[in-house]
Amino acid sequence: MTNKIEEIKEDIRKYIKTKDIIDEEWIEDKYPIDIAEAISEIKEDKVKEITDMFDNEDLAEILEQSEEYMQTNILKTKSYDEIIDIFSYMPKDVITDIMGNLPIYMSKELLTHMKHSEAKVLKELLGYDIESAGGLMTTEYILFKKGLTVAEALNKIKEIEPKTEVLDMIYVQNKKKELVGVVELRDIFNSPDGTKLEEIMIDNIISVEPEEDQEVVAQLVAKYDLSVIPVVNKNKRLLGIITFDDIIDVIEAENTEDMFRMVGVNEEESINSPFFKSVKRRLPWLYINLGTAFLAAITVGLFEDVIAQVAVLAAAMPVVAGMGGNAGTQTLSVVIRGIALGEVEDKDKWKLVFKEGALGLIHGIAIGILTGLILYLMYGNFYLGIIIFAAMVFNLVLAGLFGFIIPLGLQAMGIDPALASAIFLTTATDVFGFFVFLGLAKIFLELLV
Amino acid sequence: MTNKIEEIKEDIRKYIKTKDIIDEEWIEDKYPIDIAEAISEIKEDKVKEITDMFDNEDLAEILEQSEEYMQTNILKTKSYDEIIDIFSYMPKDVITDIMGNLPIYMSKELLTHMKHSEAKVLKELLGYDIESAGGLMTTEYILFKKGLTVAEALNKIKEIEPKTEVLDMIYVQNKKKELVGVVELRDIFNSPDGTKLEEIMIDNIISVEPEEDQEVVAQLVAKYDLSVIPVVNKNKRLLGIITFDDIIDVIEAENTEDMFRMVGVNEEESINSPFFKSVKRRLPWLYINLGTAFLAAITVGLFEDVIAQVAVLAAAMPVVAGMGGNAGTQTLSVVIRGIALGEVEDKDKWKLVFKEGALGLIHGIAIGILTGLILYLMYGNFYLGIIIFAAMVFNLVLAGLFGFIIPLGLQAMGIDPALASAIFLTTATDVFGFFVFLGLAKIFLELLV
Repeated sequence: MTNKIEEIKEDIRKYIKTKDIIDEEWIEDKYPIDIAEAISEIKEDKVKEITDMFDNEDLAEILEQSEEYMQTNILKTKSYDEIIDIFSYMPKDVITDIMGNLPIYMSKELLTHMKHSEAKVLKELLGYDIESAGGLMTTEYILFKKGLTVAEALNKIKEIEPKTEVLDMIYVQNKKKELVGVVELRDIFNSPDGTKLEEIMIDNIISVEPEEDQEVVAQLVAKYDLSVIPVVNKNKRLLGIITFDDIIDVIEAENTEDMFRMVGVNEEESINSPFFKSVKRRLPWLYINLGTAFLAAITVGLFEDVIAQVAVLAAAMPVVAGMGGNAGTQTLSVVIRGIALGEVEDKDKWKLVFKEGALGLIHGIAIGILTGLILYLMYGNFYLGIIIFAAMVFNLVLAGLFGFIIPLGLQAMGIDPALASAIFLTTATDVFGFFVFLGLAKIFLELLV
Repeated sequence: MTNKIEEIKEDIRKYIKTKDIIDEEWIEDKYPIDIAEAISEIKEDKVKEITDMFDNEDLAEILEQSEEYMQTNILKTKSYDEIIDIFSYMPKDVITDIMGNLPIYMSKELLTHMKHSEAKVLKELLGYDIESAGGLMTTEYILFKKGLTVAEALNKIKEIEPKTEVLDMIYVQNKKKELVGVVELRDIFNSPDGTKLEEIMIDNIISVEPEEDQEVVAQLVAKYDLSVIPVVNKNKRLLGIITFDDIIDVIEAENTEDMFRMVGVNEEESINSPFFKSVKRRLPWLYINLGTAFLAAITVGLFEDVIAQVAVLAAAMPVVAGMGGNAGTQTLSVVIRGIALGEVEDKDKWKLVFKEGALGLIHGIAIGILTGLILYLMYGNFYLGIIIFAAMVFNLVLAGLFGFIIPLGLQAMGIDPALASAIFLTTATDVFGFFVFLGLAKIFLELLV
C-alpha cells in the first residue's frame, strides 16, 4: 500500500513543477483516499497548488476521504462560490461533517451563499448531535408513492439519473407521507411492468429516530445485516438514510472509544497524534490515576507498623493487588463489550452479577490455594499462607463484583460505561485488597512475627 | 426489542400446543434473527417440535441467524436429505460455517449425500482458515464476459432470477478468465442497450487472495468504503465475494479480540458464556498473571531489610507501580489500535518509539514533581520526595517504551500484538519500578531513616 501512496506523491510533485492540470486518466486509475493520503503527506504550503490541479468533482471525492484538518486547509484556499460548487458533488452527510469542522465564520458565510433550500437542509442536519443518527444521515434517497407501478418507478429513476448514494433501496410512502416500505432495485427490475410498489415492498422496516445514539444504530445494522437504515421522525416521515460505510466507521470509532476510555485514553488519540496533543489528552488521566493511587497508599500507610514488623508482607502486596486488578479487568472487558454489543439485558442483571461474583469465588480459591502454598514454602510460615489465601478469595470476589457494577453504575448515571472504569476498578481492588490483607495480618500479627 | 422477542416466544408456545404449521403471514412480519433468538430461549427439548413448524426455506433463514450451538441442535433433528434441502436456500459461506461446527461424522455424511459439484465447492471452502478471506467468502456472484452488451447482461440476469447475495455488483472477466472489472447494476440499467460491459466497468478493483487474514480484509473494506470485495486466486480468477455484513461481524470480532486479549480474556468469552466455560477461559490467564506477579514480589523481597527500616516505602510502592502500569497501558492501547487500523508503518517506528519515550519523560516529570511534593509534605522527608520523583520519571519512560515495544515485539514474533500485552506490561513496570524505587531507597537509606 505504501508504495502506491509514494507513487502518487511523486506524480503530484511532478505536476507541481509543470503546473499542469491533472490528467483524467491518472485520476481514474486511483482511489480518492489514496490521493487524499498522499496530499496530506506533502508539505502544507503546497496545498493551494495541489488542489488547483483537480477539477471540483474530483476534488469533492478527495475531500470526502481527507482528514478533518486537511479538509479545512484545502477549503481555505477556495472561494465561497468554489466551495459551494465542490459541495454540489457531495452527499449531504459529508457536507455536514465538513462544515461542522470549519471555522464558524466560514460555515456561516457558506450558508448565506447557498441556495435557500440547500441551506435549510444543511442547517437542519447541522442541528443534530454528530454522534446521533441525525448526524450520520444523508438526505439523498429515492422515495416513491406506494401506488406507483414498477414501470413508472423505472422511468422516474432514469429521469432522475440518480447521484444518490444508495439507489439499490427505493423507499415507499403512503398518502400520509409515512414511510411504509422499501423495495430493492433488483425486485423492481425482476417484476412485471404493472406491479405496484406496495405489492413487492418489504413492509416491516427497521428504522431509527434522528436523536438515536450512533452506537444503537450500529447495533441494529449489525444485528439485522442491513446495508442502509432509514431515519424517520415521530410522524414516520423519512428524514434521511444512513449507509453501511458510515456504520463501519461508527463501529471502528465506538470500539476504539471503549478500549481507550476504559484505560483513560481520549478517543481522539491515535498513534500519529501530535506530541503535545497526546500530552494534553493523557496527562489529565494520569493525574486522576495519581489521586486514586494515593488512596491505595493511604490504605497501606494505615498498616506501616505491621509492615515494619513483618516486611515480607510488602513483598506479597503486589501479588494481592495485581491479581485483583487483573481478574477485575477481565470481568470489566467482558461487561463493557456486552453493553456495547447490546447483550446485557435488564432482566439478566442479577443473574450476571451473581455469575461474576461466583467466578471470583472459584478463581479466588484456585489462585489463593496456590499463592498461599508458595508463600508458605518460601517463608515457612503457615499463617502467612492462610492470610494471603483469605485475602485473595475476598479480593477476587470483589473484583468480579466491581468489574460488573462499575460499568453498569456509570451507564445508569448516563456516563459512558467504559469511562476510566479500569482506573476505578484497580483503585477498588487495591484499596480493599490491601485493607483486608494487611488487616488480617494485623489481627494475627503474633502468629506472623 | 426484548418485548418483540417475548411476543415471538408466546406465539411459538401457542403453536407448540396446537401443533400447527406456522402461518406465512406471521413469518413475513418477523425478522429471522428475532425468531432465532426466541427459539434459543425456549427449552431445548422442544427444538424438534419448533423447527418442524417451519418450512425449509424459512428455517434456512432462521438457522443463518442462530448461534452455533443452536444450529447444530436444530440440524440434529433433521435427516440428511432435509438438511441438504435446507442448505439449498443458503449462501455457501453460511453453509460452510454451519458445517464447520457440526460433528465430523455429520459433515462427512452430508458431503456424500450432496450432488458432486456442490460437495466439491463446499470442500474447497471448508479448506480455508475460518479467519481468512477464503473462510468468509461465498460463491454466489454474477460473472459475465467483458464483451457482453448491457441488453444481453440484463436478459441473462432475468434468466438466472438470481438468488445471489449481491446482485448490485456484476463482475466482469476477460478471455483468460481473469477478473478485470465490476459493473454496478444501476449503471447497467442506465446505459444504452448496445453498451458493452467493458465500457462501463470500473477496472481498478480492490481484491484479496483467499489466504488473506480477515483483519486485513476488514481494513481494506473500511478504508475504501466497499460494500463487497472479490476474492481472486494467483491467476486473478474470481473465487468468491465477501459482503459487508460479514465484514461488520469481522470488525466486531477483531475489536473484541484486541480488547480482550490485551487483558487476558479469551475472545470467545461473552457476557452470556456458560459459567464453567468462563472459568476455563479466564483461569489460565490468572495463573500466568500470578507467575508474573511473583516476579514483582521477588523484586520487592530483595529489599525486605530496607522496607523493615523505612515502612513508609511500602505505602509509596502502589503509587509507583500503579502510575507505571496506567501510563504504559495508555501507550499500549493506542499502539494496539494503531496496528489494528493499519496505521503503524515501518518507516515511522523509530519516530513513534521516540515519541512514546518522550511522552513518558514529560509525564514522569509532571507526575513525579507532584508525587514527590506530596510525599515530602506527608512525611517531612525531602529525600523520600526526590527518590520517588526519580523512580516515577524512570518508570514512566520505561512504561512508554514497553507499551510500544511489547505489541510490536509480539507482532514481529507472529503473535497477536494484543495477546496478554497488558500482563507483560504491568509486570515490566512493576518489576523495574519497584527495583529502581527500592534500589534508590537502599542506596540513600541513611538519608531516609
